[in-house]
Amino acid sequence: MTLSATTPFPSRGLFLVLEGGEGAGKSTQARFLAEWLEERGIRCRLSREPGGTPVGEEIRRVLLEHRELAIPSETELLLMLAARAAFVRNVVTPALESGMVMIADRFEYSTFVYQGVARGLGVEAVRKLNSFATGGVSPDLTVVLDVSSSVGTERQRREGKERDRIEVEGGGFLERVRMGYRALAEDDPRAEVVEGGGKPEEVFETIIRILQARFPELFTPTTG
Amino acid sequence: MTLSATTPFPSRGLFLVLEGGEGAGKSTQARFLAEWLEERGIRCRLSREPGGTPVGEEIRRVLLEHRELAIPSETELLLMLAARAAFVRNVVTPALESGMVMIADRFEYSTFVYQGVARGLGVEAVRKLNSFATGGVSPDLTVVLDVSSSVGTERQRREGKERDRIEVEGGGFLERVRMGYRALAEDDPRAEVVEGGGKPEEVFETIIRILQARFPELFTPTTG
Repeated sequence: MTLSATTPFPSRGLFLVLEGGEGAGKSTQARFLAEWLEERGIRCRLSREPGGTPVGEEIRRVLLEHRELAIPSETELLLMLAARAAFVRNVVTPALESGMVMIADRFEYSTFVYQGVARGLGVEAVRKLNSFATGGVSPDLTVVLDVSSSVGTERQRREGKERDRIEVEGGGFLERVRMGYRALAEDDPRAEVVEGGGKPEEVFETIIRILQARFPELFTPTTG
Repeated sequence: MTLSATTPFPSRGLFLVLEGGEGAGKSTQARFLAEWLEERGIRCRLSREPGGTPVGEEIRRVLLEHRELAIPSETELLLMLAARAAFVRNVVTPALESGMVMIADRFEYSTFVYQGVARGLGVEAVRKLNSFATGGVSPDLTVVLDVSSSVGTERQRREGKERDRIEVEGGGFLERVRMGYRALAEDDPRAEVVEGGGKPEEVFETIIRILQARFPELFTPTTG
């Protein structure tokens, strides 16, 4: 089966991605979405990037835990893409081919923003390398959760999350990241920006309305 | 200082690479070369790929030790290139800028051959990705040590070397690797194929003759 975007759900499955800076609520919304789909009897798989595969988790560990290593930006990007190449081939494609909804907590937008924009490698250069890694598999919908950098930082602090190597950057960095996500979504017909600063349940209602408009087949009563 | 190839040694340093299949004698010749340079009072640095940097050694471990992991070819390539990007920026470039001779045990030829040819990703696709990783830093000379696959396998066996994930392949694979190296060297004015099946000391004499012809400045008596 090919992964043509015109193949209707559920024969091909559906690839949904949640993106946004730290503290934007990606993991919470991804969990809400998985629960909502399961309640409707729709099989789904939830995973995170980098990670999601054994080799990806190893790469995640190298990238995020080894703060003392001097990692050039180019190496950081290539490690991210190495994890993605395994994630697409070993997780996303099998899920889509079996007709599941694949939910990813971060995907290519994060690479375009963190490595392309914030690290200064350039979005177009990163896009080309990313195409090799994904083999052309791309999301049916990318939801960008948009929160101010102060809301994101405060949420992170409240959850007691230790900031990792990539997050240990100043406020200007966080604002550049936010603007990067918004700019990508504005140019992408398969992306939506959702204001993520409100109550998680209200943010999720907005996401459901977007899904209803774009993928009405998800709201058709299922049999069996 | 730029890394222009026209900058004469020793103001820029010299980047020498030893390539070839397993058991071709790369490590032995690299050691001979480092000792020969040191005896002449020429500062050099010897390193291996993948590896040579802390993050590169981590990547080497993921690639070579975790045989049980299902690693797609694209991931294998991107991991190799991630290690290379760090190797070039943190090892090769500083060595060349300080006027040293950098000796690398494997570099881009190994990637073109193993991932491009043997894994079927295509040499041209791999070259483009490799250019991003190296930032255009390329060897002044690549010496391909050419041995028949039976000689290589026998040498490996005699040294009691355990074969790693990449090497556990059949004889047809080893012969494809050998032909891949030769084809690359034939198209590259900065490469030489050296028959590597003889005694290590005789192979090294051939390498020295090549260096004398290409880099006579190495043979000028040094002062101080």
